[in-house]
Amino acid sequence: MNYVFLKACRGEKISYTPVWIMRQAGRYLKQYQKIRGKVDFLTLCKTPELAAEVTIQPIDALGVDAAILFSDILIPVEAMGMKLEFFEKKGPVLNPPIRNEASIKKLSVPNPEEDMNFVLETIKILRRELNGKVPLIGFSGAPFTMATYMIEGGTSKNFLQTKRMIFQTPDLYASLMDKVTQTVIEYLRSQIKAGAQAVQLFDTWAGVLSPGDYKKFALPYVKRVIDNIKTQNSKLKTQKLTPASPPLSKGGKGGFSSQESVPIIYFVGECAGLLEEIKTCGADVIGIDWRINIDDAVKRLGSNFSVQGNLDPCALFLPKEEIERRVKDILNRASSARGHIFNLGHGILPETPVENAAAMVEAVHKLSRRR
Amino acid sequence: MNYVFLKACRGEKISYTPVWIMRQAGRYLKQYQKIRGKVDFLTLCKTPELAAEVTIQPIDALGVDAAILFSDILIPVEAMGMKLEFFEKKGPVLNPPIRNEASIKKLSVPNPEEDMNFVLETIKILRRELNGKVPLIGFSGAPFTMATYMIEGGTSKNFLQTKRMIFQTPDLYASLMDKVTQTVIEYLRSQIKAGAQAVQLFDTWAGVLSPGDYKKFALPYVKRVIDNIKTQNSKLKTQKLTPASPPLSKGGKGGFSSQESVPIIYFVGECAGLLEEIKTCGADVIGIDWRINIDDAVKRLGSNFSVQGNLDPCALFLPKEEIERRVKDILNRASSARGHIFNLGHGILPETPVENAAAMVEAVHKLSRRR
Repeated sequence: MNYVFLKACRGEKISYTPVWIMRQAGRYLKQYQKIRGKVDFLTLCKTPELAAEVTIQPIDALGVDAAILFSDILIPVEAMGMKLEFFEKKGPVLNPPIRNEASIKKLSVPNPEEDMNFVLETIKILRRELNGKVPLIGFSGAPFTMATYMIEGGTSKNFLQTKRMIFQTPDLYASLMDKVTQTVIEYLRSQIKAGAQAVQLFDTWAGVLSPGDYKKFALPYVKRVIDNIKTQNSKLKTQKLTPASPPLSKGGKGGFSSQESVPIIYFVGECAGLLEEIKTCGADVIGIDWRINIDDAVKRLGSNFSVQGNLDPCALFLPKEEIERRVKDILNRASSARGHIFNLGHGILPETPVENAAAMVEAVHKLSRRR
Repeated sequence: MNYVFLKACRGEKISYTPVWIMRQAGRYLKQYQKIRGKVDFLTLCKTPELAAEVTIQPIDALGVDAAILFSDILIPVEAMGMKLEFFEKKGPVLNPPIRNEASIKKLSVPNPEEDMNFVLETIKILRRELNGKVPLIGFSGAPFTMATYMIEGGTSKNFLQTKRMIFQTPDLYASLMDKVTQTVIEYLRSQIKAGAQAVQLFDTWAGVLSPGDYKKFALPYVKRVIDNIKTQNSKLKTQKLTPASPPLSKGGKGGFSSQESVPIIYFVGECAGLLEEIKTCGADVIGIDWRINIDDAVKRLGSNFSVQGNLDPCALFLPKEEIERRVKDILNRASSARGHIFNLGHGILPETPVENAAAMVEAVHKLSRRR
């Protein structure tokens, strides 16, 4: 039973630094490509047995300390009623994009048990198959980042449509964000109920906002999500997570609960200018991208957080000795934090040599072990 | 004669805050579109009379306090020997990209007087036509940003090819950077000799590097450029720039010199995590993007710099009262700096309503005027 990841999230004493990799179930793994050769991306997300299989692949291949549910941040957006398609080079396309009141009114707040049950099934399979080997992280896009996809109709270069809606029709934006935020809350609550042992909120695009706009137009919705999850956490029946007691609850509908609450990780892409705002979010762990030294981030966040990060994904193209040197540097810099989970500063790239990812994981474990 | 911009660069006392806009000569202006309807982008860059004309357009249309040479940061890259094309949606394409020693060996360090004389001609025309109305800013891409285009073959999402070269073949990268840096030095020297009264180094993509990599693989080349320009500055014959003496030198080959040296502005996109490194660069002015509060940037840079920035380009889609409110906020925040030049945090977007850009300029002048 490996709970070092959960302990690091809570700032408890651990014997080595845990590590996982954003997008660790992905195209850089031959095993993953084999499955993707048979089914398209969305089908993979929606087939619990397959989604569970690719979720587990990197645990065996790399020896990471946590599994993260294989899914896509746009799954709940599709469940809200938008048409979602993925194209090989262009990425996700949501068509038609959300630009007016009528299109917002048509969106629903999905019931995850009905509309995204495949995700909850995947989680239940994973808890069974992982069987305590490593904890399982659930996730959702953060409200602002999800809204950018809905308003832009996909990815964007300058997020002009999103900012136009925010700046020119703030009430419209607020009504969209209310629905998105409620969706994220229900989605994460149901993931936790199904067995997710930690959850990560991905605010990949929040860094395109100025600090003032972030504070006003993204952060309040993140806080609403975190407050809600924390409230649910404290209401759940408690059962202490130690090797002596099994991580799965015995009765109920596959439910999960722990004496400690389910940690919440909040990741913001390009966070360097926003940390003074981010530190009010209420999460347990702040994910840091690679564009800032992690000791600088720790200093600015203060001592209430564990941190996660922050190796440049491109650093996995370095020779192994150099990867090791950089791992050591980040471990040293993060040592001032309450807790540290090693990770990349963004998702692993498809071109990454798998042996270099494995070398990183090994270096983290080796160099961080307390004697 | 309006020297408030140059004075702000040097941290001298001024009666109001000067303002110009990155990409102020551009598609948001009907006058510009009219000319672009007749010639393609590269032809416009290479036709001194037309390039001068579009350079002057925003001075009249918006009342900004400086003109910036209309050109493209890839002009010297073409002069180094790469094939440069522009496509409507895709942007610039350099084909074949630089990936090995042979392709670096083939690159030359151009002689600006021969290979980019159209730029110098444009500057000379501009100094004549502006006739001291506002100062003229010359510019170049900073070495790292220019190298990314050369290695990627255009713009990039994750700059993997560039980082691969840096990480896997650092000597190859260094040999490329030597040529690029020498090119930038010669290019800026010749622009100053032709009459540029300030120069801006655009390091648009340096923010994709971690602070450690920035320090090692981008900043040293920026310092080399700045040191060289400063040395030339101090060698140039002096002629004081006051309303009493004309801004153009009377004799010589259209040369320009001032008792004070030509200020150097260094702009880094996504600078928030890099400021502790940037402050060692030696420039007079640091350009700040919108992803950080400018008072936070000033605090971290210290008192040796003037700052330039930093309104989100998308904020020009706000109602005018709100633009004014944001201008006021930035003016207040920047008041702790030695000097402040108002600007956007990145280039103005083609979709921008011109009346909003004008409203911003007016607000800067009105709200900053000392009584």
